[in-house]
Amino acid sequence: MKYGVVIFPSKTLQDRVNGYRKRYDPHYALVSPHITLKSPFDADIDDLDSISEKLRKVAAVHQPFSYHVSKVKSFEPVNNVIYFKVDPNDTLTSLYNMTHTEHFPGEELFPFVPHITIGQNLSDDEHSDVYGSLKMDSIDLTEIADRFHLLYQLENGVWTVHETFLLGKDA
Amino acid sequence: MKYGVVIFPSKTLQDRVNGYRKRYDPHYALVSPHITLKSPFDADIDDLDSISEKLRKVAAVHQPFSYHVSKVKSFEPVNNVIYFKVDPNDTLTSLYNMTHTEHFPGEELFPFVPHITIGQNLSDDEHSDVYGSLKMDSIDLTEIADRFHLLYQLENGVWTVHETFLLGKDA
Repeated sequence: MKYGVVIFPSKTLQDRVNGYRKRYDPHYALVSPHITLKSPFDADIDDLDSISEKLRKVAAVHQPFSYHVSKVKSFEPVNNVIYFKVDPNDTLTSLYNMTHTEHFPGEELFPFVPHITIGQNLSDDEHSDVYGSLKMDSIDLTEIADRFHLLYQLENGVWTVHETFLLGKDA
Repeated sequence: MKYGVVIFPSKTLQDRVNGYRKRYDPHYALVSPHITLKSPFDADIDDLDSISEKLRKVAAVHQPFSYHVSKVKSFEPVNNVIYFKVDPNDTLTSLYNMTHTEHFPGEELFPFVPHITIGQNLSDDEHSDVYGSLKMDSIDLTEIADRFHLLYQLENGVWTVHETFLLGKDA
């Protein structure tokens, strides 16, 4: 089974991001807008309790935090993903580091660049057009995160939440 | 903002239900297969912490339980919803009762009939055809529930999980 760990932004920001994703992101219907803390990884359903337990401990040693969404960026030339940049901060980095130890399955293909995807799988021309127009938009949002979620993927590609982990709550 | 409380069945059952919903349920893309414990209700975002706190207490006083999915049924003539019937059981009834007190917003239009929707918004003819063929399918599944989820709805109609509540865990 495939799992992943994400933070969902506020409803207001999710609605705004979906305004773009509806047009520019073929994954629009599969998962709500999110910051990926841990990319999709395979794990056996029998390991799920142990993974949840470890995530509960990770959540317990972090406090709710604010993060800043500062601009529209793209991962080109690596890939044609357009995203809202989330400025790095200590808590995000620590959450990432603690979910990427030998205690968790999964590997990352790229270094951690916190972001909220607004478009992907675009042709080079589309990407260039869309990115050219979106990067003019001024973004300056501060969001609060007090939880993260462990998701699993259904056969139809849709991600469902298995469990929520509240930051700063006893494990 | 609109909220709801649901139980998601196992991935295996969700995948099976989605096989039907893809064809027969226009809400297919909006929410994963579920048992509704509390129908969509309006609440102010400022009341969310208090609602979560109360749901945590409801979860704490129940233990994980098994439930039986026994057949395909329809709510006709009330409406053209085709569903997997979930046999009533004490824990489900108690979860329903405790989330329908004066401490929670929301009202139910119908008595509690636990079910997992597999088709809805069908024309009378479609409903009759589909139900006629599906009700021959023999269903006899036992599922374990150890959690429920508080969801909220985005502007595009999609339901996102706000929080998971584990049964039998201290509030």
